[in-house]
Amino acid sequence: MQPYFCPMNKVRLLTLFWLLGNTLLAQTPAIQRVDPTHWWVGMKNPNLQLLVYGPNAGTLTYTVNYPGVKLVKAHTVENKNYAFLDLTLAGNTRPGTLEIVGKNGANVIRRKYELKARDNEPKGRGLSSADFIYLLMPDRFSNADPGNDKFADMADPEADRNNPYLRHGGDLKGVENHLDYLKELGVTALWMTPIIENNQPQTNEGGAMRSAYHGYGFTDHYAVDKRLGGNEAYKALNKKVHAMGMRVVQDAVYNHVGINHWFLKDMPSKDWLHQWPAYTNTSYKYQPITDPHSAAIDRKVALDGWFVPHLPDLNQNNPFVANYLIQHAIWSVEEFALDAWRIDTYMYNDQPFMNRCNAALQAEYPAMYTFGESWVNNTVDQAYYTRNNINFPFKSNQTGGLDFVLYSAMNAALNDGEGWDSGANRVQQALAQDAVYQDPMKLVTFLDNHDTDRFLSVVGDDINKYKMGLTWLLTTRGIPQIYYGTEILMKNFKNPSDAEVRRDFPGGFAGDKDNKFTASGRSKAENEAFDFVKTLANYRKNTPALHSGKLTQYLPQNGTYVYFRYDAKNTVMVATNQTDKPIALDMARFQERTQGFTKAKNALTGEVITDLKLVNLPAKTALVLELQR
Amino acid sequence: MQPYFCPMNKVRLLTLFWLLGNTLLAQTPAIQRVDPTHWWVGMKNPNLQLLVYGPNAGTLTYTVNYPGVKLVKAHTVENKNYAFLDLTLAGNTRPGTLEIVGKNGANVIRRKYELKARDNEPKGRGLSSADFIYLLMPDRFSNADPGNDKFADMADPEADRNNPYLRHGGDLKGVENHLDYLKELGVTALWMTPIIENNQPQTNEGGAMRSAYHGYGFTDHYAVDKRLGGNEAYKALNKKVHAMGMRVVQDAVYNHVGINHWFLKDMPSKDWLHQWPAYTNTSYKYQPITDPHSAAIDRKVALDGWFVPHLPDLNQNNPFVANYLIQHAIWSVEEFALDAWRIDTYMYNDQPFMNRCNAALQAEYPAMYTFGESWVNNTVDQAYYTRNNINFPFKSNQTGGLDFVLYSAMNAALNDGEGWDSGANRVQQALAQDAVYQDPMKLVTFLDNHDTDRFLSVVGDDINKYKMGLTWLLTTRGIPQIYYGTEILMKNFKNPSDAEVRRDFPGGFAGDKDNKFTASGRSKAENEAFDFVKTLANYRKNTPALHSGKLTQYLPQNGTYVYFRYDAKNTVMVATNQTDKPIALDMARFQERTQGFTKAKNALTGEVITDLKLVNLPAKTALVLELQR
Repeated sequence: MQPYFCPMNKVRLLTLFWLLGNTLLAQTPAIQRVDPTHWWVGMKNPNLQLLVYGPNAGTLTYTVNYPGVKLVKAHTVENKNYAFLDLTLAGNTRPGTLEIVGKNGANVIRRKYELKARDNEPKGRGLSSADFIYLLMPDRFSNADPGNDKFADMADPEADRNNPYLRHGGDLKGVENHLDYLKELGVTALWMTPIIENNQPQTNEGGAMRSAYHGYGFTDHYAVDKRLGGNEAYKALNKKVHAMGMRVVQDAVYNHVGINHWFLKDMPSKDWLHQWPAYTNTSYKYQPITDPHSAAIDRKVALDGWFVPHLPDLNQNNPFVANYLIQHAIWSVEEFALDAWRIDTYMYNDQPFMNRCNAALQAEYPAMYTFGESWVNNTVDQAYYTRNNINFPFKSNQTGGLDFVLYSAMNAALNDGEGWDSGANRVQQALAQDAVYQDPMKLVTFLDNHDTDRFLSVVGDDINKYKMGLTWLLTTRGIPQIYYGTEILMKNFKNPSDAEVRRDFPGGFAGDKDNKFTASGRSKAENEAFDFVKTLANYRKNTPALHSGKLTQYLPQNGTYVYFRYDAKNTVMVATNQTDKPIALDMARFQERTQGFTKAKNALTGEVITDLKLVNLPAKTALVLELQR
Repeated sequence: MQPYFCPMNKVRLLTLFWLLGNTLLAQTPAIQRVDPTHWWVGMKNPNLQLLVYGPNAGTLTYTVNYPGVKLVKAHTVENKNYAFLDLTLAGNTRPGTLEIVGKNGANVIRRKYELKARDNEPKGRGLSSADFIYLLMPDRFSNADPGNDKFADMADPEADRNNPYLRHGGDLKGVENHLDYLKELGVTALWMTPIIENNQPQTNEGGAMRSAYHGYGFTDHYAVDKRLGGNEAYKALNKKVHAMGMRVVQDAVYNHVGINHWFLKDMPSKDWLHQWPAYTNTSYKYQPITDPHSAAIDRKVALDGWFVPHLPDLNQNNPFVANYLIQHAIWSVEEFALDAWRIDTYMYNDQPFMNRCNAALQAEYPAMYTFGESWVNNTVDQAYYTRNNINFPFKSNQTGGLDFVLYSAMNAALNDGEGWDSGANRVQQALAQDAVYQDPMKLVTFLDNHDTDRFLSVVGDDINKYKMGLTWLLTTRGIPQIYYGTEILMKNFKNPSDAEVRRDFPGGFAGDKDNKFTASGRSKAENEAFDFVKTLANYRKNTPALHSGKLTQYLPQNGTYVYFRYDAKNTVMVATNQTDKPIALDMARFQERTQGFTKAKNALTGEVITDLKLVNLPAKTALVLELQR
């Protein structure tokens, strides 16, 4: 996510909440909340730590009486309104409802806690380079239920489609209603910006009040935002996604929470958050994290500084915080049948914590795939946050990652003139450093997202450049991701604000003039773009050489860039001509990969080329050719 | 070195030479040449391979009769005018002259070969971050003997100081005469562009005839160019360098030789060189070498393509070529008492060969240090050519390397405005990737060299930027190298040609108006620059914290960049202010390194600062402060 600022200094407020919490000591004990809200029997990890919250909940002596379940330890913390109960669940524990009993003198508090049976919904299956991810913002995609657009009892009671900064009312049912559209496009995995409750107030940025419609400020980990439809809508959506043969990616935020998170109003301990003598923002500078020469304070500010004032920074070195986050991740996979995680602001998290979290997920779901956001300008820093081939003092265990280096390279390649190190050389050089990764095929590649200028605007509304970029995206190594609307030529720069690149999908909202989910609602140009992506994505879907096949790339020459993807069954040649003149491409140089082939089929048009000596490469065009014997 | 082209296609000529050689078969056998020209007893490696050359030398049956010396094998090759004799020298072999006897029927050829005793001159001592290297071009530094400027019997008989492209007559005695100047400047190691014979013809570049004064086209490995004074002048120079407490770096060229090299006129075998069906230049593209996805042909062109047409590319996979080059390296260290090697065009060499060569040198001289030229734009490729922390399929064993990434960063840092990733951030970010190197302190750092624009011109003749750059160079990690004349404000861009950055050192040649080797010959500004470098270099020389001390750098902020070098004894703070306003630097942020210190001494002025809370950083200035308790 991208930072945005609000002028209020909320730190003082948080300290206030914390003091307030401690004034409740005189109250009669009670249990108001237990997180996780429920759990399952039959998990691989027998351990479960329950956060128990309520007035004086930390003063109670706890017992649990349920076959197979043992209370190993009850922890107290600074704030007497919390207890943390370490349970173990024996392998043969049966589903059912146990009772947590807390006693303090005459006070006996009983709280039911459900241990469910695990369901058969597929989950934790991960992603691979066979996938094609569609990223959307649920508030901006489609509004199926205008009844849940806004709630008067929430911190931000507004919704207004006419205001780019406020909520627009999109919901999960709206997404569910258009899964056929994604399926048609060739999408295999759905990534939505976070769906967890963001009961955040509006914040003032540059004079304009803004809603937390982006979703990166959680206020209750165990509730999907009711303005999106709540937990049940999310379950229904995911079930449908799976039924249609696609996978579900959830957007995780471990680094921070929203300033209105329920536990911040009465923090378990002061060190629940990264505290600073005065408000300290992160520097957004990642270099100190990997720099062997960096000053300790620069590392600390980068990691423990707050992302923005209204997104307090969690202290993942507090073991209760760490357990809370890790258990929530596992709970979410099990509850909502998730297949993979995208992880927000990956760099600013405590990296040993991230490793523990990733390992815990993979211990429970061995095929689990995670890809973190590490917005860096070089492959060394990018490699640090995934399984890599560099002997850093700290070794990440993350399976994937977002490939920001290739993102920058592809955008620049299409905009900068061809030069010694520019044009397509940018793409070739980015991929040429793949030796730093253990498996570069596991990186998620993209041309734009909700935090960047939209790709079509970056390439100056040039449909030829657009097609070249999408061709690279859908044929080079990695797991491609498209940002909603790019397929129908949605455009804009982030100037004056990122709301510009987060406009509503036309047709997703009542009263929309055009419905661009359908061919008839799209203009000729939009259909050309949509059909281009659809054809290429579906070709990719059915061509394993473009997933797991090897990549051989040739040095760009004279404005052309040629590479091959190939496996035992297929060889696909991709050639782009960035010049404004047609080029008769001499194929002799590519003999290593073309030997034995006599003809080629254009993957987009079906046209067959019968002469592989000279291949016509029209001006400003990408060719995708499947070679044939 | 930088490429320069001549329009002639010399490949055909070489093939001609090779055919010609084979027509000599009818001649009476003779031995005209044995390389190495002599050897030593008491070397650690008992093996020695002699190249024996002469008409039909390959048709002879060889014997050697000398106590301790055994002829293990005599090899023949395609060309009958060569034999390669594998000798072993027992540990107790005495110095003396052995006789190589070659018989063919009635013909008995005898050739004396000297085995010398090793001398006591220090050699192979390597370099460390305690050193400060001075790079000069001997043809352009000082002419002590006008009698050796040109020779009518050489392929290029001209010398003309008025023509920037021809030889100017500088020589090794000229360098020797000014070692006191280097010593005064604080230099500890001398690196000259190659001194080996370049009996090359002039080449036509862009209409201008050019001499091979740069030295990168060897024509006889065993002869120092007589225009520089020959082998004896080189020995005398190096003896003096050592006597003055400095070290000798030789510039090695393994990748190619001059088109006039004696062995190319009658090549041992066709595969002595990298042969191509038609002339093929290297692409100068290093990415395919490290790219796991690169096409074989791109790797081959990069590695085996010729640097320029008149510098044929040696085939280091030919074991006789490899032995020839490795033995010459060892011979040179022993003969001329060398301490270290700079290696030209390191990337274009066969890397397994380079490893064998480096290992052979270090086996004989354990402290040997080599630093290759790898002109790359990123740390991953730079790391590939030195001992690194990346699990590349090929692992380099080179101890050092030229730090082109930091070179680019320092130049850009001083020219580009301060931005998110620009200004001093360039320097900080380059160093921040040091985790890729096993020992970044072993990299040679520089601001300019004979192939680049001169630093002063790059920074727009701005003396403040010049001082900032030199301060970084002389205080950050690594082994600093200065290019001759930079200390007296010599400037120029390479436009229109690299001759512009290779002008004569004023005062080195008879008739020079000014003698800038002396304070009185230098202008006020030149003395200011010279004294600046001298003061800082000598301070560095006497401050081990600036050699082997750790580096802690802070993120640049508001146009300032602050770092510390420190060891158990000393802490040196370096602070640059690139803005045009004085800054009162709040020192609180640097507490990790300043704790326990109460004052500081300015290393350049001696001024003592007694308040370490706020330090005045004048506009466009670098401060070097030694902290004191």
